[in-house]
Amino acid sequence: MRMSRFFLPILKETPKEAEIVSHRLMLRAGMIRQQAAGSYSFLPLGKRVLDKVCAIIREEQNRAGANEILMPTIQSADLWRESGRYDDYGKEMLRIEDRHGRDMLFGPTNEEMVTDIFRSSVRSYKDLPLNLYHIQWKFRDEVRPRFGVLRSREFLMKDAYSFDIDYESSKTAYDRMFVAYLRTFQRLGVKAIPMRADTGPIGGELSHEFLILASTGESGVFLHRDYLEMETPGEGVDFNDAAGLAKVVETWTTPYAATEDMHEAGTFDALPEADRIAARGIEVGHIFHFGTKYSEPMNAVVTGPDGKDTPVFMGSYGIGPSRLVAAIIEASHDEAGIIWPKSVAPFDVGLINMKPGDADCDAACEAIYAGLTAAGQDVLYDDEDTRAGAKFATMDLIGLPMQVIVGPRGAKSGEAELKNRATGERTAVPLAEIVGRLSA
Amino acid sequence: MRMSRFFLPILKETPKEAEIVSHRLMLRAGMIRQQAAGSYSFLPLGKRVLDKVCAIIREEQNRAGANEILMPTIQSADLWRESGRYDDYGKEMLRIEDRHGRDMLFGPTNEEMVTDIFRSSVRSYKDLPLNLYHIQWKFRDEVRPRFGVLRSREFLMKDAYSFDIDYESSKTAYDRMFVAYLRTFQRLGVKAIPMRADTGPIGGELSHEFLILASTGESGVFLHRDYLEMETPGEGVDFNDAAGLAKVVETWTTPYAATEDMHEAGTFDALPEADRIAARGIEVGHIFHFGTKYSEPMNAVVTGPDGKDTPVFMGSYGIGPSRLVAAIIEASHDEAGIIWPKSVAPFDVGLINMKPGDADCDAACEAIYAGLTAAGQDVLYDDEDTRAGAKFATMDLIGLPMQVIVGPRGAKSGEAELKNRATGERTAVPLAEIVGRLSA
Repeated sequence: MRMSRFFLPILKETPKEAEIVSHRLMLRAGMIRQQAAGSYSFLPLGKRVLDKVCAIIREEQNRAGANEILMPTIQSADLWRESGRYDDYGKEMLRIEDRHGRDMLFGPTNEEMVTDIFRSSVRSYKDLPLNLYHIQWKFRDEVRPRFGVLRSREFLMKDAYSFDIDYESSKTAYDRMFVAYLRTFQRLGVKAIPMRADTGPIGGELSHEFLILASTGESGVFLHRDYLEMETPGEGVDFNDAAGLAKVVETWTTPYAATEDMHEAGTFDALPEADRIAARGIEVGHIFHFGTKYSEPMNAVVTGPDGKDTPVFMGSYGIGPSRLVAAIIEASHDEAGIIWPKSVAPFDVGLINMKPGDADCDAACEAIYAGLTAAGQDVLYDDEDTRAGAKFATMDLIGLPMQVIVGPRGAKSGEAELKNRATGERTAVPLAEIVGRLSA
Repeated sequence: MRMSRFFLPILKETPKEAEIVSHRLMLRAGMIRQQAAGSYSFLPLGKRVLDKVCAIIREEQNRAGANEILMPTIQSADLWRESGRYDDYGKEMLRIEDRHGRDMLFGPTNEEMVTDIFRSSVRSYKDLPLNLYHIQWKFRDEVRPRFGVLRSREFLMKDAYSFDIDYESSKTAYDRMFVAYLRTFQRLGVKAIPMRADTGPIGGELSHEFLILASTGESGVFLHRDYLEMETPGEGVDFNDAAGLAKVVETWTTPYAATEDMHEAGTFDALPEADRIAARGIEVGHIFHFGTKYSEPMNAVVTGPDGKDTPVFMGSYGIGPSRLVAAIIEASHDEAGIIWPKSVAPFDVGLINMKPGDADCDAACEAIYAGLTAAGQDVLYDDEDTRAGAKFATMDLIGLPMQVIVGPRGAKSGEAELKNRATGERTAVPLAEIVGRLSA
């Protein structure tokens, strides 16, 4: 992509309204724009990251056997009256009346709707286990939305829902998503720690949230040092091996880990001092096991092997992709801007032409651009006629993993500079070797 | 994908509420489920088609130089007050009040919001031309939603918005999208004819809608036979060649073509009888040129080469991907079910194991499944223990382009049957040749 054709409205000033670093950087890098309180547009650079985050989430959901669907954003209040949550949910629910005076709402979550899909089409235990997920916009009318897309009112959520014949199978479904989440966060380039959690308005008796460690995180967390070295299951993990999954979950839930609200100082302080980590974290995923909380009132039953109807056991599993974009920045940035993990970077390489119009620079850049593109690399080519200082600052700000810097002297003598954004390391490399080095 | 792990709730009965064939077939094939009046979930089979439709639309928008963004669904009423449309829009707009009593709305379209993005970040004619698009859910509160996803209240829309310095450039932007639309519909496997259209609540003086010809279409259309043989620009079309684009548009708008409301019987009847086609069509795209209708009241100006501020010239360009899924079915089905064009088929191949549990059948199917998957084909493998008749009916109903049928006798003697869904042609093929035949 040529920068001259890419809509990248970089802000020179730091926006006053942004209280935290990810919000500031996303605004400055032209990734988002605020449209109303707690409501943001994703501009092209932000959209590319959001898409990459969603693609990884989707791949890992599919790998774990979940089926992707897409439910509407607007729901009928009647469904929520069946579960009893229409009155319980409070003011965070955006309630709407349609032209015929029917009560509707913008879905803050989808337990009722997916239970309705289930009960209308599944009759027998033979069709289980089943896990349905979607990636769809949600709305929660927070009193005071803040922190940009980290806590917005309208946000994207991946929510999965599992259906099983009994407690044991549904615990395996829970473990399956637990493991899929570990894999997802690792692939997103962040360290996420599972912690026991309250179940809040979703309900149920078993719940974990996943928190990314980031010094600017919203809540304090306390954990055993073992988590930092713990191994995430590989691509070959067998999602049908209930015992194997349970073992992974046990490993990842045995050492101490807790958010402020669930913290037991006594237990934590009993750990050897060298093992205690007090840090800050950002919630990026939350999983719930709630058994028959929705299936009983909504009459979502299946016929078991014994011929008897039994309410289905359920869990739900959420990740916020739009929130994750910000959380990744909180965990990975420096003074100059964002440092994207390779897996979610909006482009792989930033190519800087220091002097557009200079024949050597133009020729070298065009060759590198064509070569990298042919090698499957996504390149943002800064072909614009702006000051060198501004070019460097912009490229650092938007945080692409690698930069290629082509100046007139180097281009003449057959050289360009490679810069690693994370380490800052710069290397002079012959022009002919650039493509090979970056595609290796 | 193994059918035993794929959520495919096929209906045996034809649902009574469905008045048109695409609605019936989408319900029967387990592609969608109604959640409220005019509101549908896309189930896995439907979601796969929707994704393919969106991917093609996206590719052609990007090829034409448009930048993808993502605006929120909920908008502030204040923006719409600036353009004057808040009061004009009528009851189709879903109006919402948030917890603080602020007037919001579920966007039926995004001219105001995108104009706001533009005015906040673009200052100079040097940053033009610009085209921003997104694919996002819209809501229009129709009095009587019907016909399934063909006319639902909540629907997916790709809407693009062009910004140019003067009328001439903005006409080129219009032509660019016109040509991108021709390419998009051709790739989707449908014949779409551009026709002059009213501009309705969007406004402006130049507008075309694109209609798919389908015998079950909602409106009558009248066109010159020439359209049926007209050539669509190829992948190499130059979107920077204003004259070339204008020529394509001229070719595609010169022969007679009109919907009922714009029909001039006199002009049409003057054509030679052999050239007159009276048919039915379904609107699947609509493009508008409206100049400064929004930029003037909203003060979206750029500095021109002369240093003076001038309101930007705009157009907007819509395609409904969710509606298209239904429209494609209207244009491509038979008594037995859907016949997907290859480019949007939810899977490339349906593999039927006639007797799961039979060692020869299982071995042959597993080998074909693995071979096709390795060759990059998307296969739906019917590995379920159901009656042969039901298997055939389901596979025809869901309309995958090719079927592979493996029965016990064939499997033993080393043969399977290939069936072309569109033609019904069946061919016996040695097992060893199946993968090669289907991947060619």
